[in-house]
Amino acid sequence: MTPFEISVLFFLQLAVILGFCRMVGWVAARLGQPQVVGEMIAGVILGPSVFGALAPALQAALFPPASKPVLFAVCQLGLSVYMFLVGVEFDAGLIKSRFRSAAAVSISGILAPFALGAAAAWLLAPHWPLFSEKTSAWEGMLFMGAAMSITAFPMLARIIYERGLTGTSLGTLALAAGSIDDAAAWCVLAIVLASFAGNPLVAVVAIGGGLAYVLVVWLLGAPLLKFMAAKTEKRGGMTHAMLGTTLSLVMLGAWFTDRIGIYAVFGAFILGVAVPKGFFAQALHKHLEKMTTAFLLPLFFIYSGLNTKIGLIISPHLLGVTLLLLFLAIAGKGVACATAAWLNGESPREALAIGTLMNARGLMELIILNIGLEHGVITPTLFTMLVVMAVVTTLMATPAFNFVRRGEPEITPA
Amino acid sequence: MTPFEISVLFFLQLAVILGFCRMVGWVAARLGQPQVVGEMIAGVILGPSVFGALAPALQAALFPPASKPVLFAVCQLGLSVYMFLVGVEFDAGLIKSRFRSAAAVSISGILAPFALGAAAAWLLAPHWPLFSEKTSAWEGMLFMGAAMSITAFPMLARIIYERGLTGTSLGTLALAAGSIDDAAAWCVLAIVLASFAGNPLVAVVAIGGGLAYVLVVWLLGAPLLKFMAAKTEKRGGMTHAMLGTTLSLVMLGAWFTDRIGIYAVFGAFILGVAVPKGFFAQALHKHLEKMTTAFLLPLFFIYSGLNTKIGLIISPHLLGVTLLLLFLAIAGKGVACATAAWLNGESPREALAIGTLMNARGLMELIILNIGLEHGVITPTLFTMLVVMAVVTTLMATPAFNFVRRGEPEITPA
Repeated sequence: MTPFEISVLFFLQLAVILGFCRMVGWVAARLGQPQVVGEMIAGVILGPSVFGALAPALQAALFPPASKPVLFAVCQLGLSVYMFLVGVEFDAGLIKSRFRSAAAVSISGILAPFALGAAAAWLLAPHWPLFSEKTSAWEGMLFMGAAMSITAFPMLARIIYERGLTGTSLGTLALAAGSIDDAAAWCVLAIVLASFAGNPLVAVVAIGGGLAYVLVVWLLGAPLLKFMAAKTEKRGGMTHAMLGTTLSLVMLGAWFTDRIGIYAVFGAFILGVAVPKGFFAQALHKHLEKMTTAFLLPLFFIYSGLNTKIGLIISPHLLGVTLLLLFLAIAGKGVACATAAWLNGESPREALAIGTLMNARGLMELIILNIGLEHGVITPTLFTMLVVMAVVTTLMATPAFNFVRRGEPEITPA
Repeated sequence: MTPFEISVLFFLQLAVILGFCRMVGWVAARLGQPQVVGEMIAGVILGPSVFGALAPALQAALFPPASKPVLFAVCQLGLSVYMFLVGVEFDAGLIKSRFRSAAAVSISGILAPFALGAAAAWLLAPHWPLFSEKTSAWEGMLFMGAAMSITAFPMLARIIYERGLTGTSLGTLALAAGSIDDAAAWCVLAIVLASFAGNPLVAVVAIGGGLAYVLVVWLLGAPLLKFMAAKTEKRGGMTHAMLGTTLSLVMLGAWFTDRIGIYAVFGAFILGVAVPKGFFAQALHKHLEKMTTAFLLPLFFIYSGLNTKIGLIISPHLLGVTLLLLFLAIAGKGVACATAAWLNGESPREALAIGTLMNARGLMELIILNIGLEHGVITPTLFTMLVVMAVVTTLMATPAFNFVRRGEPEITPA
């Protein structure tokens, strides 16, 4: 295919992807589910599992291999801008304000699912095709542990915001614990990727480079962003030049962290955290959020769905393994977080609410799974099993949260 | 290169492109030039003409052929969303309100440059490598005529808005005439592309399909957009679902017009024109404009610059041809429009102001040139000559407009 033919097809792909995500999203909304659930399921349907099984020729014509580089590059782009915005909204102050409870919930929210995940990997890996042959036993354990510990931090933040729980004890605690858990899981993933590269030098470059990146963002990026924020606030609005410069920095961070072998989303997220809260952060959000989430992000869900092959787990044994992993994911994350919150003095109801929120895996899980698949750490089989786990835990979150909080007064968001 | 490697490089390309566009844009702003001038020049500098001449290995490493499909697809994406927004801002009511003058200025603004361009193509084509061997004499004449008649409509609209001339006689007339001229030039281009396909059936598909597209947008698209606009206004804000649906329609229109052999930008522009003015149009603008122009559009300028090879016209004769084309472009467009406005009762000063605005070619010229080059109508040599013409006429616009209107009271924009 020529570049021109690829670009023509890309328009059709986008039209189908955006249109279909809207349709499934509409159904999801009618069922009281958030947008992300609709998009996760839309991705699986457009992939080989449903569309590819029903109309293989049509599916192959719509998503030929030659179009993959464009789809992949644009979905990485969308993901990076999105993770930058997640970083922009990330508020480290929250963690400080509820340090003890947050630490307890987040440590339980890592240790329990991590231990269960690692144990499952250790026990299951010899018998089932979960990891590639190159993956060592402890790399598999670390990856499974990290994949189990993920929290859908942006989704949790959205639910808390939409219910008007932002300033409450419950909201603060869930946000703080969720963000610590995600940060920890990403660090473990970085270690797995670095180790997986085999060469110790590569691991040193990845970890050393990652630390250097954080340092550079802190020492140079943060003051620069502060200067840009002050200028933007003085002007009373975001100029094209300012937005372009900011996005150039995001791309530079994404490139660097990709290049050293951790991942573009880290670089973008960390730069986002360095953005000073206030007018500039809000202006960035205003100009980037809608187009990123409504236009670019659906591509990632579809890309992820193209990798999901439900057929791979359609056998009694493999479905059994899937259910086991799902059970461990819920027990490890939801139950452990709720228990920790309860032991730290939250009411049983609040504790359960925290457990249901922390349990959702959402988009974040899909990101970590796609990285694992792409680097050849996990097989398409384990990928598909954990996509099922991600979809189910995300689907559960809203009804479970509503059930736990039934009868509580509704608070309208600020 | 693997999709992953291409995506990593794409981040670096974007970081360099956005950063460099900002730097050149900063210099341009200091010299009183609009952003578009900076980006046009940044594109030429990053291409083979300057960066490639100074550091060929580095330039080749940053823009390898394997990365072209991604660059091209994303710049087409940005261009389509941008042209959709241009359509959203397009106000057919303006043409009606100043019909006589607008008709006179715009007809002169087409006929004169078209005649001069066609004559130049007819006289020069046998002696200089301007057109590919497949291009017939009259196709070359039509293409050159269309390329000469282009007006930088979005830039003209921005200058008029920035100077607070939107409601004035001058502003209304320039906007109306500029938009008629661009529409006419695009129609001619569509005819050239259709004819160039050789097969008469292809021409029928292109022209018939184009008419069918306009009809479908008018009969189905416009009522749908009106419904969406009413719903958005009732809600008081743009939802993700509404924005996603709109963009899905834009992509569908872009794909269809690309597919039938006219061009994605037409489809997007025509859909934009069908968007009802008011709250919905403003909300689309608010959520799409900044990210599109600051993030996606710079890619197009760079893609265009990668095709521009100044080396091709560095010879006394070819520079002479370039200067001749530049002279014809200014005489045909600027002088003819100013004369027509003056003969229609505008003051000499207002008439000159209209001429300077109509004369700028800007981004629109680059679009038509890239289409011509990509379809093999024109050679890289003529492409480069006309890029020089586009840059010079765009550079001239602001100083010339300021000079003509010196001493006029400044009006602050609404």
